[in-house]
Amino acid sequence: MKKQTKHTVTTKSALSENKGVEAPSTINPKAFIKKKEIAIETYVSEIKKGNRVYLSKAITLIESTNCKHQQKANAILKKCIAFTKKNTVRIGITGVPGVGKSTFIEVFGTYLTTLNKKVAVLAVDPSSSVTKGSILGDKTRMEELVRNKNAFIRPSPSGSSLGGVARKTRETIMLCEAAGFDTIIIETVGVGQSETVVHSMVDFFLLLKLAGAGDQLQGIKRGIIEMADAIVINKADGENISQTKLAKIEFKRALQMYPHKISGWIPKVSTCSALHNTDIDAVWKIIQSYLKLTQANTHFKDRRASQNKFWLLQTIEDQLKINFYSKPLVAKQLISLTKKVEIGSISPFDAAAILLEL
Amino acid sequence: MKKQTKHTVTTKSALSENKGVEAPSTINPKAFIKKKEIAIETYVSEIKKGNRVYLSKAITLIESTNCKHQQKANAILKKCIAFTKKNTVRIGITGVPGVGKSTFIEVFGTYLTTLNKKVAVLAVDPSSSVTKGSILGDKTRMEELVRNKNAFIRPSPSGSSLGGVARKTRETIMLCEAAGFDTIIIETVGVGQSETVVHSMVDFFLLLKLAGAGDQLQGIKRGIIEMADAIVINKADGENISQTKLAKIEFKRALQMYPHKISGWIPKVSTCSALHNTDIDAVWKIIQSYLKLTQANTHFKDRRASQNKFWLLQTIEDQLKINFYSKPLVAKQLISLTKKVEIGSISPFDAAAILLEL
Repeated sequence: MKKQTKHTVTTKSALSENKGVEAPSTINPKAFIKKKEIAIETYVSEIKKGNRVYLSKAITLIESTNCKHQQKANAILKKCIAFTKKNTVRIGITGVPGVGKSTFIEVFGTYLTTLNKKVAVLAVDPSSSVTKGSILGDKTRMEELVRNKNAFIRPSPSGSSLGGVARKTRETIMLCEAAGFDTIIIETVGVGQSETVVHSMVDFFLLLKLAGAGDQLQGIKRGIIEMADAIVINKADGENISQTKLAKIEFKRALQMYPHKISGWIPKVSTCSALHNTDIDAVWKIIQSYLKLTQANTHFKDRRASQNKFWLLQTIEDQLKINFYSKPLVAKQLISLTKKVEIGSISPFDAAAILLEL
Repeated sequence: MKKQTKHTVTTKSALSENKGVEAPSTINPKAFIKKKEIAIETYVSEIKKGNRVYLSKAITLIESTNCKHQQKANAILKKCIAFTKKNTVRIGITGVPGVGKSTFIEVFGTYLTTLNKKVAVLAVDPSSSVTKGSILGDKTRMEELVRNKNAFIRPSPSGSSLGGVARKTRETIMLCEAAGFDTIIIETVGVGQSETVVHSMVDFFLLLKLAGAGDQLQGIKRGIIEMADAIVINKADGENISQTKLAKIEFKRALQMYPHKISGWIPKVSTCSALHNTDIDAVWKIIQSYLKLTQANTHFKDRRASQNKFWLLQTIEDQLKINFYSKPLVAKQLISLTKKVEIGSISPFDAAAILLEL
C-alpha cells in the first residue's frame, strides 16, 4: 500500500515537471486515442517472414486474459497453421533448481544455431507468476543466446493454473514454428506436475541431473525418469569428473529397471559441462539418433498425433469449465452451495447436481 | 473372430442338449421377469441400522455404470447424509507393492476393533480392473479382518480412469459413515497419481516403508513424502531390526528438509512389525495425537471443508465432460475432427472451438 502511494507521488511530480501544475487539463485528448490496432493479416504476414517483434506481440495476445485479445490470437493461429514449419523438433528440458538448466540451454541453444538451427526457448513454470520468474524470467542468465539473431527466448507466461500456462505455451510453440523456428526448447522445473505437461508437448524429453548427494537428496521422481529419453549429468568438470562417471554408470543401471518404451528407443545417459562447454554436441547426437529411429518407425508422427488429440480434449474441457462457471446464475449459487458443502450440510455430489441443473 | 464363432456353436449345442430344438419357446416367460427392486427407503433404513448386506448392495449401485443405478445411488446418498456419523477418521495408507500393506491393515484394523472402533477398509487402485485387483482384490489376504463383525472390507471399484474410481470411493466413504463405521481406511499403491487422490479424501495420510535397498531402489517420490503425516517402517523384526532403527533416523532427518505443514503437525516416523503384531498401537497413538492437535486448531475441520469443496468442483467438471461428449452431434463431429487434428490439418484449438459451437 505504502509502495503504491509512493509510486503515485512519483508519477505526479514527474507530470508536473514536464507539463506544469495544470498538466491533466492541458494534455492533448488525442493522446488518449488508442493506438491503431495491428491487423490480423499484418501479424500473419510478419510472422511468416520470421519477424520476431510481431511474433512477440502475437504471443502477448495469446497470454492476455482479455477476451478480444484471445479471439485475435486464435484468428492469427488459425492462419499460421497453413505455413507452419513441418520438420521441427520440440525438446523438453527438466531438472531440479541448481542443476544448471539456464547455463545448459544457453550453451546448447548457441551450439544449435551454429548448425544453422533456428532456436526458440520457452518455459512452463506456473509458479513464476508468484516468484516473479524463477526460470527464464531473468533473461540475463542467457546473455549470449538472447542476443543471437537465430534464437528467440520467451519466459513462462504468468498464470495461476498449470493448465492455463500449458495451453499458452502450446499455442506459442505453434506460432514459433510458423515464424520459422525449427528447434523448440521448453524448459521446466522438475517439481510438481509441470514436467508431465511439458512431456505432453515435446518430441524428446531430457532430464538434467547432477552427480552426488546434492541432487539425490531432493529425491528422484520415478515418473520423471520414466519419461526421460536421455539423462544428461551436468557439471562434469574439475574435481567432479570421477563422480560424474560413477553417476553415469548408476543411472544406466537404474534405467534398465524401467519398462521398455513403446518408441523402441533405449534412453541414453550422457555427461557434459555446460559451464566449460564440453560434450554439448554429444547431447545433440543423442537427439539426432532418437529422431532417426522414431521417424523411421513412425513413432515420431504417432506421438505428435496423440499429443494433438490430447490438446483437443484438454482445450474442450478447459472451455467447458470456463463457460459453466461464467454463467451468472451458476456463479451466484456456487458461493452459497460451496458454503453448505464445506460444512457438510449437503453432499458435494448433490450440490453439483443442483448447479448442473441451472 | 474365430473364437466368437466357436462360442456360438457351443451355446447352441448346449441349448439343444438341455431343452431340445424348440428350446426358446419352452422357457417359462416368468423366469425373465425382473427380481423386485429394493426401494430407496429400504436401502436407507437398513444402512442406518448398519446392515452390511445393504451397504454392499448400495455400493454396487454407486459402482455401476448403469444410469438408473447411479440415480438410485444418488438418491440413497442424499438421504444418508442426514444421519452420517460425524466423529469419523479417514486414514489413507500407501506404500509400494511388497511393503506389507495388506498385513498391516489386517493387524491394524483388527487392533482398532478391539478399541470398539467400527472399521471400513476401501481401496483406490485404478489398475485393478486390468490386473483383476492387485490390492484388496484377494480378500483372503485379510482373513481375520474379513470375518470381523466390526469391520467391512471392499475392494477397489473397477474403472479405467482414476477420477472415476476416486469419485466412487469418495461416495462409498459417505455410505460407510452412514452405516456407522467410524474409522475408514483407504489403501492405495504408491505409484502413479492414486496417492494424491487418496490424500484428497482422508484426514491422515500414512506412508508404509521398508528399511534397506529393496524399497529405496523403487524411488521415493518427493510428493508422497510431502503428503505423509507419518512414515511407518514395517517389517521391524528379526535380523531387520537394526536396519529399521537406522532407517527411522534417516527418515526423520529427511523429513526435516520438507516445509512445515499448515496443520502445525510435525510428521512422525515409527517402526512396527505387522507380521509379529508389534508396535501397532504406536501407530494409532500417532494418529490420536494428530487428531487432538488438528481438532484443537480447527485444521481437521478446515481440511474436510476444502476436500468437500474439491469434490464439488471435481464432480461438476466430470459431469460437464460427460454431458458434452454424449451429445450425438458432438460425438459424430469429434471423430472426423480428431482425425484432422491428428494429422495437423487443423489446430487442436480450432477444432475445439468448432465442437464447442455445436
